[in-house]
This record gives sequence, structure tokens and C-alpha cells, in this order.
Amino acid sequence: MALRKAQPRIREFALIRTLARRFARHNTQLIRGIGDDAAVLAAPAPGWWHVTTDLLADGIHFDLRTASLESVGYRAAMANLSDIAAMGAVPRYVLISLAIPSEFGTRQVVQLYTGLMQACRPRHVVLIGGDTSASSTGLFVSLTLLGTTKTGRALFRHGARVGDDIYVTGTLGDSLAGLRLLAQMPSTRPVYRMVSPLRASHKKFLINRHLHPTARLAEGQWLNNARQATAAIDLSDGLSGDLRHLCEESRVGAEIDLGMLPISAACRAYAESRRLDAALIALTGGEDYELLFTAAPVKRATIARHARARGFHVTRIGTIRSRLFGIRMNTPDGTLKPIPNMSYEHFR
Amino acid sequence: MALRKAQPRIREFALIRTLARRFARHNTQLIRGIGDDAAVLAAPAPGWWHVTTDLLADGIHFDLRTASLESVGYRAAMANLSDIAAMGAVPRYVLISLAIPSEFGTRQVVQLYTGLMQACRPRHVVLIGGDTSASSTGLFVSLTLLGTTKTGRALFRHGARVGDDIYVTGTLGDSLAGLRLLAQMPSTRPVYRMVSPLRASHKKFLINRHLHPTARLAEGQWLNNARQATAAIDLSDGLSGDLRHLCEESRVGAEIDLGMLPISAACRAYAESRRLDAALIALTGGEDYELLFTAAPVKRATIARHARARGFHVTRIGTIRSRLFGIRMNTPDGTLKPIPNMSYEHFR
Repeated sequence: MALRKAQPRIREFALIRTLARRFARHNTQLIRGIGDDAAVLAAPAPGWWHVTTDLLADGIHFDLRTASLESVGYRAAMANLSDIAAMGAVPRYVLISLAIPSEFGTRQVVQLYTGLMQACRPRHVVLIGGDTSASSTGLFVSLTLLGTTKTGRALFRHGARVGDDIYVTGTLGDSLAGLRLLAQMPSTRPVYRMVSPLRASHKKFLINRHLHPTARLAEGQWLNNARQATAAIDLSDGLSGDLRHLCEESRVGAEIDLGMLPISAACRAYAESRRLDAALIALTGGEDYELLFTAAPVKRATIARHARARGFHVTRIGTIRSRLFGIRMNTPDGTLKPIPNMSYEHFR
Repeated sequence: MALRKAQPRIREFALIRTLARRFARHNTQLIRGIGDDAAVLAAPAPGWWHVTTDLLADGIHFDLRTASLESVGYRAAMANLSDIAAMGAVPRYVLISLAIPSEFGTRQVVQLYTGLMQACRPRHVVLIGGDTSASSTGLFVSLTLLGTTKTGRALFRHGARVGDDIYVTGTLGDSLAGLRLLAQMPSTRPVYRMVSPLRASHKKFLINRHLHPTARLAEGQWLNNARQATAAIDLSDGLSGDLRHLCEESRVGAEIDLGMLPISAACRAYAESRRLDAALIALTGGEDYELLFTAAPVKRATIARHARARGFHVTRIGTIRSRLFGIRMNTPDGTLKPIPNMSYEHFR
């Protein structure tokens, strides 16, 4: 029942038909996609379903003054794919809900979906449903992603044991550096135009890492199926915060070697150009969508060998300690300090 | 990465812990609920999953000046339960995402969840996850509900055949009448205070039907398991619109007898008191969350007998016709007219 009737810029059912035609695909286990009261999926054999959902708000998670609708869609999908990667699961189905501002037409909605499906389609994730609504204010995007594993096989946050090695995939801090570069671009803040002596290729790399992150699905699935990891989480809030979540769920502490954090040449150059501490950017920067995982020390050689063979970038950065030890970091000056809780929370 | 840092009225992780403690429950097939990157569910045997999602926006789907947070939550959950009812499925799990205005504290969020869980808990639907975010504007609520059926058993919109009877459960139009009564309540519009000569019990009934609708889960499950219905849809947009959806998906037409629409005594009294046509309210009013279903005429006696035995309120209101016939209604003056498409669409 509409309490407020917006301008008829978009008719809901016509929009859903357009989106279904352009973006929906079928697979053999999808009994019914868009077009009924619910999507219907066959679970042909025993197995585990993994379900994750995210709600993204205009002005909180994205800023349409600096980000394109494609990149908002792409990053929203990738954040959910990363959650599925951290479970070691295979992503299967996505539902997309939008609250759409009155100034949007079909073109804007299609742009957003294009970004979403650029992230989903190469991973064979099928769009099966969602909801569209008017918004009397900004754009809100809600995603639900469903993945599968075999029964009994998943990477949880709670499995880390004292003595386990701590690893991360990829490099850390790139996304934060990229976001800061974007925020200083001429189009939005002309006053910063000449500040950065950073190489164009480094800039491009960092901005791309922010706008087009990559969920580590293959890495997560390998760690899960080959039973290499004891626990895993994806780095969405930043290492300092997400390591804390993993430690809380596993009831353990951790010791990280700050000098071992994997940092890209571009992020180091960015830090130098701004006289910032690259390790601090790596420690606290969010939205890298890399995986943080733990594994028993006996797995060290196997993990190194398989990572090389499969082209996975994996770095050992520390050790799981007892809960009493707390969550600490070895700094380059040789002291052991508590890791500050500087993770991003949406309510701060 | 926060682009805009709201006041620290609520800390996200503390809030999630509070909500998980108060509202999450376990069941034997829930491997992992709140607290990991994704919820994990066991599908112990072959079967079908039914997934539906809804996004509700402040000022579009609800108005916090007239509706309590409990009733917003309750109605949001019931709308999704109704979709699952229309599939003939058993609702199992719910994920709830909120974008929360800065003026909300934990108390308001708990009120909303209380309403949501008042709808979910008596149906044994378990809260398994969600997301919380700040909102720089109003409240947005996104729900995802998962249900199950046996493999091969579901009520789709596309199964209606020419000659099938058309039925609805319950009575139609009550929710719209209740909404209009609420909109005229003294607290919001004092000018209407003395208009209605409607009995207090009728008022109460209609307002309750709007604020506390009931998804027809038992009816849907029975129709599905006993293979009585050929197609079904829930009445969220209103009979005129939802019948159209069912006919489009089934590629058929329909003939409805306006005089047979089930209308409550309260709704009739409301219509009289406002000099409105009760049948028109029943035809177009949304959010009744009754079921519209079709069944072969040979099932007529079985359906009537079982409905009586189980206490289901079911009314036959018309017949499925060919697509060429269109979607028409027999009016009390004996003429056959096209049913106007007056269904509510969120973009109108």
C-alpha cells in the first residue's frame, strides 16, 4: 500500500521484466527464478547451504558523486562473494533488492545491475530474484547470496587453535589507498589536485583495487576442500578488526609480525608520497576482500607448494596465541604492542 | 569504509550480539547462525528450497507517524511468510537487514525485531543472519526468508488451466479499510475525527487486519501436499493485480463473480459508512495476504470438505477462461466488464 506515490518514472513490473530478460539465466538446479512468489532451488543431494546478506546505503557505503553505479553494483556483489569465499563455498545464487530514488530511470537501474552481474556472471552465480521499491531518499541496495559445500565441509571463524600459523592472501591496504586517491580526484576536490607525486600506474592500480576488488573464491575453496585451514574470515573491515572477530569466535589471541604484512609496491609508494606508515594502512584498511586464515604449522610446506602451483598469493604473517596473550603485533623497533581496534564499524 | 561517520549511538557489533542473544535460536539443521561470514544450513536430503526477499522503505511501505516499530516488523515478516505460503512451503529461516536512522537507539531496533520475531517465532522460523548499517535518512528493512518443500512439490503461478475454479482464502479488503481508518485517526488528522459512524468493534477488527495480517501457511501447505491446487499466488497487491499476475504466468484469462467476493461484515459496514462500494475495496485492496488459488472442478467437493474439517475459510469466486477472454468480472447488474488493473505498484 503506497503511503507516498512517487512519479511514475519506472513501472515496477515492466522494470522486473526488463531486468529478468537481460540478467537472469537458468541452470539445471534452478526450478523457478524470477516471476513467482519465491525462487525455487533443488537441493539434489545432502549438502550445506551458505547464506549471506548485505545492505548498502547511499552516503554510508558508497558516494554516487565519486563512484559509478556499475562500480557500486560490482563492489556490493564482490563483498558478498567474499563472504562465501571465506566459508570455502561455491557461490550459486543471488537475490538483489533495490530502493530506487525518484530521479533514477531504467537506465540507472540497468547500470547498477550491469556492475552486479559483472561480478556474478564470471563466477556462474545466477540471479534468481529480489525486490524493487521506490525510495523517498537515496539508493539502498540489499543483496543475498547463496553458496554450497559438501556436508561437513566449511571454513568457520571458530576453528583456530593456539600455535596455528596466520596467513593472508594478496596484499593489504590497497583499497583504502585507492579510496583516498579517489576522494582527492580533481572532479570532487580541486584543491588536492597537485599534491600527489605518485606514479600514474600506481594510482591506477590502487584505484582499481578499490573499485574492482576480487573475492578469493578459488583460494577459499581450495583451503576448504583440501582441509588445509582451521579457520577463515574475509578482510572487509580491515585486518585489525577482522583478526579480532576470528580470535573472539575461536577464543584465542594472536601475534602478528607487522614487518611481514604483504604490501603492494603501489601502496608503499602511496604511503611514502603521503608520509604515512604503510603497515598501518595495511593493518587498518578495509574492503581488501582478501582472506585471513589459520592453519597448523605442519601444513606450512604443503600450503606454500600448492599456493605456488595454483598461483595463489599467500603470506604467513603471525601465530595464534592463547586468549590471555591478547592480540598483539611485533613492531619494526622490536617491541610487542596490542593491536589497536581500528576496524571500521558502520555506526562510528 | 565509512564515507560518513554517524554519531556513535549504536555500536554495530554490540548491537548484533544483543540481537543474537535475544532473538536467535538453534535447530538441528542450522549448522551456524549469526557470527560467521555466512549462515550455514544442512540440506539433509533431496528437497526444494524456496527463497523470497522484500525491501521496505520508510515513507513508502510504512509511516512511522502512524505505525509502531513492532507493527512495521510484524508486517514485513508476514509479507514474506505469505510468499512462502503461496508456494505451499514450510518457512524455515529468516535474515534481517536494517539501515538505521541516526536517531534510533538499541531500544528502537529491539522493538522492530520484536515485531519481526512475533511473526516468525510461532511459525518456528529461525533468525540466522542479516546486516546492520547506518542510514543517513530513514529506516530501510530488508528480509530474506527461506522455506522448504519436498522435491517436485510446489504451488506455482503458472499452473492454472482453462476451466479451473478460482478460490480465495479469508476475506478481502479488510487491510485497505484498516489502513484508511488508521490514516484518519485523531493523532494524525484531527479533521476526520467525527466522520465515521462505524462500530468500535468493526474499526478494531479492520485495523487489526491491517496491522496484524496472517499468512495462510497451513492453507498453502495443505493445498500443496494434498495436490489440490493447480496454481497459487498471495494477495499482496490486491486481487485485481495479483489475479492478473497469475493469469499472465499461466497464459490464461479469468472470470470473477463480483458478488461472490468474500467480504467481512466490518468491511461492508466500513464501505456503507463511507458510501463506498465494498466489492471495489475487496477487488483492489492490497496487503490482505490471503491466498488466491485455482483447482480443477473435480476437486470442488474435496476442497469444501477439507476446508470445513480444518477450519480453513475458502470461497470460490470464479473460473479460469482462455487468454482471449481476458480478465473480466460479472457485476451485480448482470454485465461482464474487464477488471481494471488497479493493483498497487510501488512506482506509481
